[in-house]
Amino acid sequence: METNLNLQGGSIVNGESLPGSGTAFHGFDPAAGAQLEPVYHCASIEDLNLAADLAEEAVATYGKLPGREKARFLRHIADGIEAIVPALVERAHHETALPEARLKGESARTINQLRLFAQVVEEGSWVNARIDPAQPDRKPLPRSDIRSMMRPLGPVAVFGASNFPLAFSVAGGDTAAAFAAGNPVIVKAHHAHPGTSELVGQVVARSVKECGLPPGVFALLFGAGAEIGAALVDHSKVKAVGFTGSLPAGKALMQRAAARPEPIPCFMEMSSVNPFIVLPEALYSRGEEIARGLFGSFTLGVGQFCTKPGLVFLPRDVTGTIFVDELKAQVEKAGAAAMLTEGIAKSYRSGIAGRQSCVETVAQAPSDGAGSTYGAPVVMQIGARDLLREPELATEIFGPSALVIWYDSREELLELARSLEGQLTATLHASERDLAAYADLIAILERKAGRLIVNGFPTGVEVCHAMVHGGPYPATSDSRATSVGTYSIYRFVRPVCYQDFPQAALPDELKSQNPLGIWRLVDGEFTRDAVSAGSKAGTA
Amino acid sequence: METNLNLQGGSIVNGESLPGSGTAFHGFDPAAGAQLEPVYHCASIEDLNLAADLAEEAVATYGKLPGREKARFLRHIADGIEAIVPALVERAHHETALPEARLKGESARTINQLRLFAQVVEEGSWVNARIDPAQPDRKPLPRSDIRSMMRPLGPVAVFGASNFPLAFSVAGGDTAAAFAAGNPVIVKAHHAHPGTSELVGQVVARSVKECGLPPGVFALLFGAGAEIGAALVDHSKVKAVGFTGSLPAGKALMQRAAARPEPIPCFMEMSSVNPFIVLPEALYSRGEEIARGLFGSFTLGVGQFCTKPGLVFLPRDVTGTIFVDELKAQVEKAGAAAMLTEGIAKSYRSGIAGRQSCVETVAQAPSDGAGSTYGAPVVMQIGARDLLREPELATEIFGPSALVIWYDSREELLELARSLEGQLTATLHASERDLAAYADLIAILERKAGRLIVNGFPTGVEVCHAMVHGGPYPATSDSRATSVGTYSIYRFVRPVCYQDFPQAALPDELKSQNPLGIWRLVDGEFTRDAVSAGSKAGTA
Repeated sequence: METNLNLQGGSIVNGESLPGSGTAFHGFDPAAGAQLEPVYHCASIEDLNLAADLAEEAVATYGKLPGREKARFLRHIADGIEAIVPALVERAHHETALPEARLKGESARTINQLRLFAQVVEEGSWVNARIDPAQPDRKPLPRSDIRSMMRPLGPVAVFGASNFPLAFSVAGGDTAAAFAAGNPVIVKAHHAHPGTSELVGQVVARSVKECGLPPGVFALLFGAGAEIGAALVDHSKVKAVGFTGSLPAGKALMQRAAARPEPIPCFMEMSSVNPFIVLPEALYSRGEEIARGLFGSFTLGVGQFCTKPGLVFLPRDVTGTIFVDELKAQVEKAGAAAMLTEGIAKSYRSGIAGRQSCVETVAQAPSDGAGSTYGAPVVMQIGARDLLREPELATEIFGPSALVIWYDSREELLELARSLEGQLTATLHASERDLAAYADLIAILERKAGRLIVNGFPTGVEVCHAMVHGGPYPATSDSRATSVGTYSIYRFVRPVCYQDFPQAALPDELKSQNPLGIWRLVDGEFTRDAVSAGSKAGTA
Repeated sequence: METNLNLQGGSIVNGESLPGSGTAFHGFDPAAGAQLEPVYHCASIEDLNLAADLAEEAVATYGKLPGREKARFLRHIADGIEAIVPALVERAHHETALPEARLKGESARTINQLRLFAQVVEEGSWVNARIDPAQPDRKPLPRSDIRSMMRPLGPVAVFGASNFPLAFSVAGGDTAAAFAAGNPVIVKAHHAHPGTSELVGQVVARSVKECGLPPGVFALLFGAGAEIGAALVDHSKVKAVGFTGSLPAGKALMQRAAARPEPIPCFMEMSSVNPFIVLPEALYSRGEEIARGLFGSFTLGVGQFCTKPGLVFLPRDVTGTIFVDELKAQVEKAGAAAMLTEGIAKSYRSGIAGRQSCVETVAQAPSDGAGSTYGAPVVMQIGARDLLREPELATEIFGPSALVIWYDSREELLELARSLEGQLTATLHASERDLAAYADLIAILERKAGRLIVNGFPTGVEVCHAMVHGGPYPATSDSRATSVGTYSIYRFVRPVCYQDFPQAALPDELKSQNPLGIWRLVDGEFTRDAVSAGSKAGTA
């Protein structure tokens, strides 16, 4: 592969590729079953310490960078990625077996995401500037001048995900949000796509340099086991963590973050089975069409989406049967496909085998002769009472499987909904009458999931201002956050309050004249006006 | 005492005072050294379970209450407290030894705080409504209609603080914020002021009833040991915790919250020594005046404020010496005063004695003949190098003490600042020239504290929109939050996203017509306009 010409096989710290010294490993092509060049070397603890020291040093400069300069940096990264999309897609395709079209789409999403954050920080109102001007004549006590705004936390550790080699990896959503917020970032690359990670890492490191930023603003560390990741979360100079991955790995890192001498906020996006509910009128009028859409959604990307709809709730009646017949027909026409890694494929097949010993299989696509990296679509089924007795049968199986749950009554459906753990999404197919008749179900789901979808499919997460890609535990470690969309910037900031500061010592965002022209909450009212000396509580 | 006539001595669950069955205890007057009637009984685990079940049941109704009705409820509580201020102040004065004037001020603060939250939820824009309308013609893929807003977490456990029997207790800041956000609240009363807690609890329970809300919206539990508090944090129906208290107690509860099968967000406000820095020009021109103000601040309320300035940084020169001479003169004129509880007074005296074996005492007010509940002001001193070697000498001593730290150079001052743990506040006395010359110091302090104060004193926390009463660990468990001011509402909510919902199924806050007239972020722009079908990305 030509793109290998640029790959050094080392971590990137201080703007430079490090000669490898740690454990050696290779990328692997799961579709071809072949090892990919070059050899990679894991970072050492010394490499990590250097990255953390430089990141901490970079805070003083980068944390104070004006929004327009952060925007320039984010756009520089976006442009750099855009310039290498063909090479990136080629390498990622080999490393992940994801189709090129999907990877092109993911590249676009990654680039647009960086540009969206650039827009947000350039505009500047995101800092949540609040000003309560002094009231020197207030009785019984005068009020001081109180102003506050969001400030970055400091170095952020980001863990690349296996299933989104671009959008949730080196320059993905966590990194974009942390950079936008003003934090240096240390990425732990996912070992399943080292080449893709390095290509993007090179772009980011070059952007740091070309934008004249301190080299500690970004580092990329390789590590094949858990050691570097654990050391990263433990490091005293790391102030927050963003992670997308499995529940066991996320939970282990959550516990480390909580056990530090100084516990730090961590944002783990982990496990979700994404309930999918088809209500009576929708089921009657469009059941087969919805079943085809559902098949497309749960097998998309070989079922390797956090938002894959894994639980399907159907009434035990003829409309439900017709729905499942269509699902079955779809599965039987399908075949096996290469999954992201051999480990993921093995977990999938053993997870399915284990589940099949407890629940009935409706249909399973043939996988005869498929290699050890392959997984085939499966649909299983269980009765509501059985599932309520053994709720562990509804836990996530990462891959193209879905479990149909048959319920006998409206009350049973509500009981199932109440028994759900936290989810990233919950989907309802419903007519307007269905929605009105099931308002109580919606109220339950609002407490279970970060995003509720009507008449759509949960896979495909729009990067926008209103998106919530989050949800109660175990979907994420903190339901108060999202890892997609511009609201995700708030994970990596904290409010800082300035009391009775003279104008010259205040950040521009908080100066009375409002030189940046941002929206601010002045005495509790949104405004872009300056705070004038003549206002009801002026201070100048 | 007449006010005792109303006291039942029991927890309040389901709107009713429970007959006591658990361990018995009494309130105690630390100034008089006398036990107060009536006897109180700790809640049982069954009482807690009932409170939690009712709270969970109340979520469906209370969590969906329109802002104006939540506002009515909050104002009803405020009016109810206002009506009993004399009785409340009298009882609290006996239970805490805090002066009546202070308690009157704290009553007003508590009442105003409830009314400020009422205003915020009535206005309604706080819900952070975000709308990204559908773009059906977007290429390569259409965009769905995506809308999101804040929703309550569910039942919140609030731990009353010893040092603010009103403003950080039963109907204090945590409760007001949790109620405003739409959550039922279960308060664990501080055992040091049971009567004050019960009086306020009765007001809240009555407001729940008179506003026609489900009785599970509020419960008050008494517990003298750690058992009820621990069980409350462990309870599966409790979804968040607000706490103000000591570092060991807060840390123990944080660990419990993190170890639950479903970890929950917790907001502990714990420990802060509140560095106080007098820069050269200010020290030269106003040193003695600042010293007198500092004395007033660190001895206010017998030093029992979270924001008590406990570390004083001074240059080792004549201006620093004059400052400390004035501080010494003030301390020598002072006397001992009754602290909140005998336990707190004992901890204070043993903490001081321990510290005095390591650092030099500058001055100590006489406490001859004072009872076991008394504490006297102390000022100690240490050199910067000694403190940097033994940083544990700067940990919090809760009570009227301050430690002067002598530094020899500007660089040493910066090193001291860098070595600080997380703080609620940092105070600078400075001329404008001082501030310009010490911009690097301010940048360090911004990362250490939630609130920076210029030429003022940290005690006295304004309840307003811009206030931040928070800071990095160990000041709080989560630097991203505040426990005072209207921004504190965001501790107890999570964003929920609605994708492609028809108008009728959307909450009013997200309907295109904007029937509530709130500020919303539509396609990334703040507006109060309706989202019209004719807009660039209309959906109706």
